[in-house]
Amino acid sequence: MSSKTLTLVAFAVAASAISASTAISFYIWGKFKRLEKSLNSTLQKCAAERQGRVRAQQALRKALAQPKSENLELTSYPMTPIGVVQSCFSTRNGTPRQPLLVPLARACLVFDASRVPPASLEGLGEYSHCWILYVFHLNTDLEKLWKEPSKSKFKAKVRVPRLKGERIGVFATRSPHRPCPIGLTVAKVEAVQGNTVLLSGVDLVDGTPVLDVKPYLPYCDSIQGAEVPEWVMVENKLTIASVSFAEGFFSTLDDCWGTAGKKSLYASIDELQSLIKQVLSWDIRSVSQRNRPHDSLVMIGNDKAFGNPSDIDENQDEETSVCRSDQGPTPSEDVIYHLILEGLDLSYRIDGNGNVIVEKVSISSEFPNGKQNRCNYSMWRDHLT
Amino acid sequence: MSSKTLTLVAFAVAASAISASTAISFYIWGKFKRLEKSLNSTLQKCAAERQGRVRAQQALRKALAQPKSENLELTSYPMTPIGVVQSCFSTRNGTPRQPLLVPLARACLVFDASRVPPASLEGLGEYSHCWILYVFHLNTDLEKLWKEPSKSKFKAKVRVPRLKGERIGVFATRSPHRPCPIGLTVAKVEAVQGNTVLLSGVDLVDGTPVLDVKPYLPYCDSIQGAEVPEWVMVENKLTIASVSFAEGFFSTLDDCWGTAGKKSLYASIDELQSLIKQVLSWDIRSVSQRNRPHDSLVMIGNDKAFGNPSDIDENQDEETSVCRSDQGPTPSEDVIYHLILEGLDLSYRIDGNGNVIVEKVSISSEFPNGKQNRCNYSMWRDHLT
Repeated sequence: MSSKTLTLVAFAVAASAISASTAISFYIWGKFKRLEKSLNSTLQKCAAERQGRVRAQQALRKALAQPKSENLELTSYPMTPIGVVQSCFSTRNGTPRQPLLVPLARACLVFDASRVPPASLEGLGEYSHCWILYVFHLNTDLEKLWKEPSKSKFKAKVRVPRLKGERIGVFATRSPHRPCPIGLTVAKVEAVQGNTVLLSGVDLVDGTPVLDVKPYLPYCDSIQGAEVPEWVMVENKLTIASVSFAEGFFSTLDDCWGTAGKKSLYASIDELQSLIKQVLSWDIRSVSQRNRPHDSLVMIGNDKAFGNPSDIDENQDEETSVCRSDQGPTPSEDVIYHLILEGLDLSYRIDGNGNVIVEKVSISSEFPNGKQNRCNYSMWRDHLT
Repeated sequence: MSSKTLTLVAFAVAASAISASTAISFYIWGKFKRLEKSLNSTLQKCAAERQGRVRAQQALRKALAQPKSENLELTSYPMTPIGVVQSCFSTRNGTPRQPLLVPLARACLVFDASRVPPASLEGLGEYSHCWILYVFHLNTDLEKLWKEPSKSKFKAKVRVPRLKGERIGVFATRSPHRPCPIGLTVAKVEAVQGNTVLLSGVDLVDGTPVLDVKPYLPYCDSIQGAEVPEWVMVENKLTIASVSFAEGFFSTLDDCWGTAGKKSLYASIDELQSLIKQVLSWDIRSVSQRNRPHDSLVMIGNDKAFGNPSDIDENQDEETSVCRSDQGPTPSEDVIYHLILEGLDLSYRIDGNGNVIVEKVSISSEFPNGKQNRCNYSMWRDHLT
């Protein structure tokens, strides 16, 4: 081969080598750069995950943190209920506004046996009364409270119609809508059986979670000469003159009792009727219903403007009553009201003289009386005999 | 230049180009590989962070979960205190065992203004008394309670010496060691000023976190004829005959007052002395100290075996008192006891006839009286005049 050809070949090889290596270098460099970009974005993602983890762990530590008593920094204390109330009152409407107002109002306080051994209840039955600390679990603003406990808002003042619409501080009332929605009430201790406490005179709604039970100690808890503002002691305007049952009522009760009787906390239809009479002896209608009577198929909440001393109680809240068939003003005697006890929906009227007539009863589909294995009269029978 | 030289140069260039590009390629490849390794490890780290984040968020969700009221499945309710007690009682020892027992016992309930606007307290001052729901923050088993609230253990029964060492269920007592360590007490409402409630007759330790304040309603809260088991009403064996101050006491108090006076809830040395007398009129020693007197430099806890009706109270717990210098049995008249009020460490003796002699006072290094901006007498002065 001539040297010229060789030279050409050499140059061609050189040129190819250079181009090839340049191409390879560019390729590798490109890959390198993409990898570097990938690494950077992964590092960023990693940093974000770490930030998220740290934040979640800080929030968790805060939620479970030990209290710091040295300063005003206040962390959340997780309180786990020790039991649940199984009460004759299926809804807030009708639940008494004061404890012990309805002596026949029965409830079983069923303790979580896995956390609260029956031995911890021994001796409680020797007290006549006990305090119950519970959660206002039916408050509608609870969701925000639980998610951001330190940031939940609440109404600082509540309306008191008896003070002509003026508002007072929520801590001057027993309103359920408080920063820590813990209720305080007292009940008569009937008996303690295993992990269940039988109570009477209750003012608690069925399903109420209970945080604590304490014996009532008169020398600590009963204060002689305690004073309250005048407006608290103002009497309820309308008193119920009498409670009677319409003729047709008894057959409807017989019809229901077949099913309801097995789950009832009451021995018989007679005893249940006594309960109904006791509950309806107090005007359980909301303030707005008293002022402007209207039909209500089912009361979801009560209008809880405090004005009546018995309105200042634990069970009520401020939401306006929900009326399913609001057909405008109706003559008050024709208005049908409802009361749900033990899952039984009672319809009643109030005439112009304050006489309550209970018309009929049916099994409530909306507020069934809980599961089959509820406490029922059989527990009470052992105690009462 | 001859063609041979050109050829040689061309080959040389080609060879150099090939070697250079090979070298560069190896270099880049090496870097590439290291980068790939780095990326892999970062990806692994990222996965670990994500796992940690998810786990923390799940735990957080569980801690803050919404309550399920349909069944007995009981989730935790995070309760965030609304305020803190600034009390004259620096330690549990000496804190009264009942509310209202020591009328001069003062405290300021300071609300967290960011969460509890002063408007929410309006009207509370019109009640003579109020309930305080608080956390037993000094319980030593709290850490386990907060970390695994649904799994925390507690003693089902507590010892009652008056029942000859028998134990009764914790829910038949007001022991602090309960599944939900919430205390319930009452106090006299002196005044409400801004975000602070002035209280007297308190039985709360300084630094107690407060969950709620409710007005005391006699028609709800005061039960006539409430009964308790006989053993609860058994009288305290040893009553204090008198409380007097040793001669040397006053100079030691003068020495302390210069510093302590500014932060005191009391107007003067005289008023503080009245408080000391009231507190020591009740035998604040633990049951074990009464039975076997021994020196105690500082009482960290009280022996809280319940037997005395006034032992069944909120502030105490069952831990045995910690004695710093236990030198064995000492004649009871020579035993020096301690009481810490407002950060002042008072030493006293009790003679054979139940007379208390307060010997001296010094500023406590272990229980200082909180920060400088505590509530002090100036708030009370405005109210009392």
